[in-house]
Amino acid sequence: MVDMPGHYCGVVAMALTSDAVPSLKRALRVIQHRGQEGAGIAVYKDNKIQSLANVGLVHEVLSGQRYNEIEGNYGIGHVRYSTTGRSVAQNSQPIVVTSAIGDVAVGHNGDLVNSESTRERLQNIGWAFLTTTDSEIIIRLLVNELKEGVDPVKAIRNVMHQLNGAYSLVIMIKNRIFGVRDPLGFHPLSIGKLDKGYGLASESAVYDILQGQFVRDVEPGEIVEIFPEGYTSYPTNSKVNSAHCMFEWIYFARPDSVLDGREVYDVRKKLGMILAREHPVKADVVIPVPDSGRAHAIGYAAESGIPYEEGFMKNRYVERTFILPEQSLREEGVGLKLNPIKSTVAGKSIVVVDDSIVRGTTLRKIINLLRKAGAKEVHVRIGCPPVIAPCYYGVDMRTRDQFIATNRSIDEIAEYLTADSVKYTTIRDVEEAIGMPASKLCVACLNGEYPTNVPGEKCRKQPTLDSFEEDSQQ
Amino acid sequence: MVDMPGHYCGVVAMALTSDAVPSLKRALRVIQHRGQEGAGIAVYKDNKIQSLANVGLVHEVLSGQRYNEIEGNYGIGHVRYSTTGRSVAQNSQPIVVTSAIGDVAVGHNGDLVNSESTRERLQNIGWAFLTTTDSEIIIRLLVNELKEGVDPVKAIRNVMHQLNGAYSLVIMIKNRIFGVRDPLGFHPLSIGKLDKGYGLASESAVYDILQGQFVRDVEPGEIVEIFPEGYTSYPTNSKVNSAHCMFEWIYFARPDSVLDGREVYDVRKKLGMILAREHPVKADVVIPVPDSGRAHAIGYAAESGIPYEEGFMKNRYVERTFILPEQSLREEGVGLKLNPIKSTVAGKSIVVVDDSIVRGTTLRKIINLLRKAGAKEVHVRIGCPPVIAPCYYGVDMRTRDQFIATNRSIDEIAEYLTADSVKYTTIRDVEEAIGMPASKLCVACLNGEYPTNVPGEKCRKQPTLDSFEEDSQQ
Amino acid sequence: MVDMPGHYCGVVAMALTSDAVPSLKRALRVIQHRGQEGAGIAVYKDNKIQSLANVGLVHEVLSGQRYNEIEGNYGIGHVRYSTTGRSVAQNSQPIVVTSAIGDVAVGHNGDLVNSESTRERLQNIGWAFLTTTDSEIIIRLLVNELKEGVDPVKAIRNVMHQLNGAYSLVIMIKNRIFGVRDPLGFHPLSIGKLDKGYGLASESAVYDILQGQFVRDVEPGEIVEIFPEGYTSYPTNSKVNSAHCMFEWIYFARPDSVLDGREVYDVRKKLGMILAREHPVKADVVIPVPDSGRAHAIGYAAESGIPYEEGFMKNRYVERTFILPEQSLREEGVGLKLNPIKSTVAGKSIVVVDDSIVRGTTLRKIINLLRKAGAKEVHVRIGCPPVIAPCYYGVDMRTRDQFIATNRSIDEIAEYLTADSVKYTTIRDVEEAIGMPASKLCVACLNGEYPTNVPGEKCRKQPTLDSFEEDSQQ
Amino acid sequence: MVDMPGHYCGVVAMALTSDAVPSLKRALRVIQHRGQEGAGIAVYKDNKIQSLANVGLVHEVLSGQRYNEIEGNYGIGHVRYSTTGRSVAQNSQPIVVTSAIGDVAVGHNGDLVNSESTRERLQNIGWAFLTTTDSEIIIRLLVNELKEGVDPVKAIRNVMHQLNGAYSLVIMIKNRIFGVRDPLGFHPLSIGKLDKGYGLASESAVYDILQGQFVRDVEPGEIVEIFPEGYTSYPTNSKVNSAHCMFEWIYFARPDSVLDGREVYDVRKKLGMILAREHPVKADVVIPVPDSGRAHAIGYAAESGIPYEEGFMKNRYVERTFILPEQSLREEGVGLKLNPIKSTVAGKSIVVVDDSIVRGTTLRKIINLLRKAGAKEVHVRIGCPPVIAPCYYGVDMRTRDQFIATNRSIDEIAEYLTADSVKYTTIRDVEEAIGMPASKLCVACLNGEYPTNVPGEKCRKQPTLDSFEEDSQQ
Repeated sequence: MVDMPGHYCGVVAMALTSDAVPSLKRALRVIQHRGQEGAGIAVYKDNKIQSLANVGLVHEVLSGQRYNEIEGNYGIGHVRYSTTGRSVAQNSQPIVVTSAIGDVAVGHNGDLVNSESTRERLQNIGWAFLTTTDSEIIIRLLVNELKEGVDPVKAIRNVMHQLNGAYSLVIMIKNRIFGVRDPLGFHPLSIGKLDKGYGLASESAVYDILQGQFVRDVEPGEIVEIFPEGYTSYPTNSKVNSAHCMFEWIYFARPDSVLDGREVYDVRKKLGMILAREHPVKADVVIPVPDSGRAHAIGYAAESGIPYEEGFMKNRYVERTFILPEQSLREEGVGLKLNPIKSTVAGKSIVVVDDSIVRGTTLRKIINLLRKAGAKEVHVRIGCPPVIAPCYYGVDMRTRDQFIATNRSIDEIAEYLTADSVKYTTIRDVEEAIGMPASKLCVACLNGEYPTNVPGEKCRKQPTLDSFEEDSQQ
Repeated sequence: MVDMPGHYCGVVAMALTSDAVPSLKRALRVIQHRGQEGAGIAVYKDNKIQSLANVGLVHEVLSGQRYNEIEGNYGIGHVRYSTTGRSVAQNSQPIVVTSAIGDVAVGHNGDLVNSESTRERLQNIGWAFLTTTDSEIIIRLLVNELKEGVDPVKAIRNVMHQLNGAYSLVIMIKNRIFGVRDPLGFHPLSIGKLDKGYGLASESAVYDILQGQFVRDVEPGEIVEIFPEGYTSYPTNSKVNSAHCMFEWIYFARPDSVLDGREVYDVRKKLGMILAREHPVKADVVIPVPDSGRAHAIGYAAESGIPYEEGFMKNRYVERTFILPEQSLREEGVGLKLNPIKSTVAGKSIVVVDDSIVRGTTLRKIINLLRKAGAKEVHVRIGCPPVIAPCYYGVDMRTRDQFIATNRSIDEIAEYLTADSVKYTTIRDVEEAIGMPASKLCVACLNGEYPTNVPGEKCRKQPTLDSFEEDSQQ
Repeated sequence: MVDMPGHYCGVVAMALTSDAVPSLKRALRVIQHRGQEGAGIAVYKDNKIQSLANVGLVHEVLSGQRYNEIEGNYGIGHVRYSTTGRSVAQNSQPIVVTSAIGDVAVGHNGDLVNSESTRERLQNIGWAFLTTTDSEIIIRLLVNELKEGVDPVKAIRNVMHQLNGAYSLVIMIKNRIFGVRDPLGFHPLSIGKLDKGYGLASESAVYDILQGQFVRDVEPGEIVEIFPEGYTSYPTNSKVNSAHCMFEWIYFARPDSVLDGREVYDVRKKLGMILAREHPVKADVVIPVPDSGRAHAIGYAAESGIPYEEGFMKNRYVERTFILPEQSLREEGVGLKLNPIKSTVAGKSIVVVDDSIVRGTTLRKIINLLRKAGAKEVHVRIGCPPVIAPCYYGVDMRTRDQFIATNRSIDEIAEYLTADSVKYTTIRDVEEAIGMPASKLCVACLNGEYPTNVPGEKCRKQPTLDSFEEDSQQ
Repeated sequence: MVDMPGHYCGVVAMALTSDAVPSLKRALRVIQHRGQEGAGIAVYKDNKIQSLANVGLVHEVLSGQRYNEIEGNYGIGHVRYSTTGRSVAQNSQPIVVTSAIGDVAVGHNGDLVNSESTRERLQNIGWAFLTTTDSEIIIRLLVNELKEGVDPVKAIRNVMHQLNGAYSLVIMIKNRIFGVRDPLGFHPLSIGKLDKGYGLASESAVYDILQGQFVRDVEPGEIVEIFPEGYTSYPTNSKVNSAHCMFEWIYFARPDSVLDGREVYDVRKKLGMILAREHPVKADVVIPVPDSGRAHAIGYAAESGIPYEEGFMKNRYVERTFILPEQSLREEGVGLKLNPIKSTVAGKSIVVVDDSIVRGTTLRKIINLLRKAGAKEVHVRIGCPPVIAPCYYGVDMRTRDQFIATNRSIDEIAEYLTADSVKYTTIRDVEEAIGMPASKLCVACLNGEYPTNVPGEKCRKQPTLDSFEEDSQQ
């Protein structure tokens, strides 16, 4: 899915016995793919939280004089995709505030469904908001609960009752660091042991690269506090099904990460194998759309016995397509980025495999490139079922009219793409590859049934939460 | 006073029938001397306030793509001196918030005496602060008062009752623009008519350069609303004496500005003439410390009949002294900036005139340069009485131990400076030059008597306000 | 070969009926992999040559005001790897000079063996050199030949007689554009037809992406002049064997390029297949070192029947390893860049395939990563024979002591790398894969026999040229 | 003359017993006014010359990593005004070359009259030029003379015989440093003693600020070599009159510099006194055009007895007028820069004094500002006679049609400027103020008689040099 409309965000946190700043930077670079538009850290030292955040890649933002000066054994970090909001710099994360009980910082991955209504409710009692982020809503609700003597965990729990949607949070209250995952566990968050302490991170690959050990995922609805010596769990007593975003495995996360017990590469390869079983085709070669379809294509090739080949050279020096300002330039961008390899393509029947299709405009161009390079047949195999409904939980696809699969049959899609055939997996296949029933996944973008109340949309049949109500009896 | 420890800030506002952005930029450049570390504007259009603010000079911040995009007929602007606070970018002004009744923006010139206690009071009821500025305190108090149906003027008045200190404010509530001057009128704020509407500005020179007309000063305690067609006044009914900062005439403001009815150049020249009358000396030439002492020196020369000369070449390409990181470099900076003109200095008895002395370290170096260049005698004449007490209202001189005049007699000062004589004006002289009794000025840094309650400091005898209480009966 | 010490450079040229600047930029982006440290173009208009060149990537250098202003239907371009020389900006290419017969520009890919002796010879007759580049030597020799009435082709030929080494040149003499390839054809250069004219480029992929057609390679020793309407050939009458750099196929060029009739991807895949035939091993998976070993690994997997898998996640957001200043940081860089995929690696016998080994330090770390991730066995297969001798023709490997294969047996290499086995291809295999006898290739880095005279090194047995002497009878 | 069309350039050189880099930087900052568009240094160490040069102000160019690395006890420096030439970065100075006898560097202040013809002559014998500067011509002629065993002084002398025009040069041949002034001494160059050695500089103020001592001016036609321990003179035996550019005293040089025995401030003040004697007027105040007319105005006031006042506030934060791209913006620039001081101007008869008039457009606007501010009468007094002829020796005024005084009587000039009267000094007055006969000055721009052969222009009557011929018998 080379035209994926947007990643979400990523978070990390660390409680160490030595300066956490270099480790936070390394960890953020590991999850840089989750957000390339902004980065930041906040660290605690001498009773104060200091932060450094800006637009740019991690190694750009976390450098220079300020980076060299800032230090602290406790800290959180954030990479950001979204640029919503009036002032880019003011909306950078982690967000940091001063409060009666000291400095507080928050980093957020996900989208709240009720952010607008909550903002309105708070404005109506006289609150002014300096940013347009969900994070400010969360941190100011939190400080409003945090009074002298109030247990931070209780305060966090009270805030959770007011939030509807997806949130994997890292929270620093003075030098206490908490990880929070929303009751449905939309996006990942995991605990790891590092050389000098404990950490939290959106993806488990962080612990590999920092030469630590993955400990376990934070459970849906759970609050975890980490220390240099270990961690304490404050689980929810709510008994609802989870709603893990299936896109994390299919597209967003790194292949080398393990999310809620399932390795991403393995899930993708299995989807490719399922595609080969369910949608076989006589062809000469299997090629991926680089790099998103590679694991799926390897699976398809292994299962089908058709040779795996690289069909395209991808130019890594072309700046990212989506930042090109005009449509004409963006289209040029695709042509500049991918070029067919003639010996693979010319005169061949080709199976081209990708992880998913959203708009389909780029895939159409890719097929065109293959045709021009002499492909005899082009069969498209897609690891993800058709996307037909918007996401309100953190993926930047908000309107139905952007989807190729809206109001098009499979044949019409093939016609639009100029493919000889197009085949998708089913939700059933996704369940099989991930090894988890759809009732524990969020597949709202595939079937239009949302795991929380979304105004104007249908709720999924399974036990639903409006805002974590069942949990409020605890 | 070439070692002046810091300017305050400056504000402008405009309500026009056409785009205000270019005029706001020009106006801010006119008052750039009031703050060279940051600049910003906020403008209203289509029911939203958009802003552009950053560290840097006006022409640096207000340029580029974002500057070209932003527009609106109503807007406010700010230049900033201070860099207090954890995050430079987050503390930029104007500060803008969203609220129940729409977007609100504020620009602030001055310092609150009670900002820490107010911040603490508000944190104790659960408020979180995203910045460390007085401006956030002011804007959030304001939004807390601004509910549906509440008169903005009433809301502003209620906020004023909670503030103690110096504040010249420009406030934009959606597309309504207000100017506010604290009850004692510490810092200037004036109303002007422009080609396409009305404006507010810290200094009257703005209207000259924008080819408009100065209308009048905002009165102490007054709230003014400007429209493209005119303005409405909401005066205070408080009957306290003003406390205009005398430093505005002596050092801060532009010579070509007229503040509360008195032209700055004229005040400075008169102080020089008074010095000549009260502290005559037999000398060959009168020279200024460039550029701050020029008008005073011209007055001294005119009154004394001693020829006026330029005694120094000032290198305008040397970057500003105060931003040099190390003390050794800073001292080099002075030597690099000023060089004596031999024909003026060699073998001469010299009267060197400056506006004021704070630390005296630079003046000492200047005298040393004159001696080395062959000056026979060096007589120092200073337009301002000795500074002996800190300022809490916006000038960056907060501790007594930085003042040369603390615990030194006039003779000891001369000895420290290696001058043949040093003479100051008196508070009485300042009254005469400005044409206003000390009871209507703030001379707290000269006599240690503060016009508002400052914890640990003495109050001036004249009717004092703790926080504008008399006004609260209105 | 993730620790490859350096690419060379790349050149393009165009003669069009419309502005060539946008096409030159696109073409340079296609060959950006050949040089990421500098870029530039020179174009002819109104009897003048204007240029824009600087350090940085193509899209960084070719942007901004100057880029928008510059135009011309005739132009040449260059991407640069090397940063030798005192002043980075002064050494940028294309180099442009004014001369008696007008402006002249040159872009150069390759290294001269006799640059130092030529420079010395010219300095001894009073010449001063403004840069430390080979390009200045070439362009000044050229202008020295170019007098009123002299045929440019004759002048170029005379310069060629003075050069010993590798040079693919694009030359612009006023608005006449020439492509030149040294008599041995070390580095590629090809002719292509574009929509609005003709072009020259280091790699044929340029014509694919600009939607033109590859016409043919420039022959060794040939001079070609291109026009908007076609091209003219000035072949050499020398009858020596070529010495095409085999590294172009093995590592440098894009997989989708076709060099001297052989597609790069296909050569690499064949080397992988040969490795599988000659060095089989019982294993569970074949994985590439991403991205350099991918085509070789696909070949190995196809021939051996062992499944192809991705064994590493490569972090594309990590800035390029080689620009990290300190060795400790560089080592960190590798760990940050590659992370094993557990499901592929754990408990498996692995064949890891790469294109070549130079120093071996990175490969050693890669094997270590595989071991830690649970690999049972690690068998290394390398598409290129051992590198044992320096290159003087454009590849940045100049000293023997940097090579892992110097003074080490295959077993000792395996021991150093901590691999269970290490196998290389032979020069014979390289001949087979490329489909060309070694007598037509430069394999000097593999056998120490150089195709031109290099002081202190051995000459290859085949007909050798000192400086293109045979050709001088023409 | 606030619309002065351009400064020339400035040079410095040092031979010290310790690192010269910091001193070169300080020295260049002292003469920054002579060129604000580019700066650079070249220093000798370990048998090599290294350089750092770029566009920008001295403190911008000489900073960062490269600045910290570069060092050497011997060095030269340059500030540059002109931006002629195709590539700004390539034309930066000092220019550095490698040659048979080692590295050579040159910095140049002035303009050659015969650069085009010399360039052509050299191109016709096969030379290629990499830049469009006079400096490249000079340095390459020099290297062409510098062979093993040739005396550098002899080589420099041979080059001088080929140059016609203005050149104050600093030359570094390996670690030998030479200062050269053209035979007519157009522009200044002086020798000074510093703490750790000897130096050369365009202006004597350099030695004041570096706390050294001015030794003497380099004589016209003289070559000087400096060492850490002293200097050696190689005087010319030519007996021609000098042609010192009178504009150096009137406008270009710093007031605190002493050029060829005359202090700049003193010359300017005397011109003001002469104006007062010769062109008296009944008026209330004398004001300068800031800052260029200040010394002249002080002289006028002192002689006339009319009080001296500041009539304008000058905004120092406005970026330089001449870099504003469009004429409309440039005109706005003037308004933004100067604002009348009402108490000085309103209702007054004013004498406004400036150093010179070239185009007159800015002065016209200044008078308009005074009128609007209520001036009763405006009398213009100019320290320099009317400029009527182009300069070919380094001042950026090349065409007659740009001068206000071309084809206008004094009355017509007054009418154009809307002044009540305009009076200039005469060449006779300039002689008196400088204390030197016109036969020793270059007053070509005032009378159209040029001290060297300029094609199409008239020669001055005094002994003229075509290219230093008389000297060639030495």
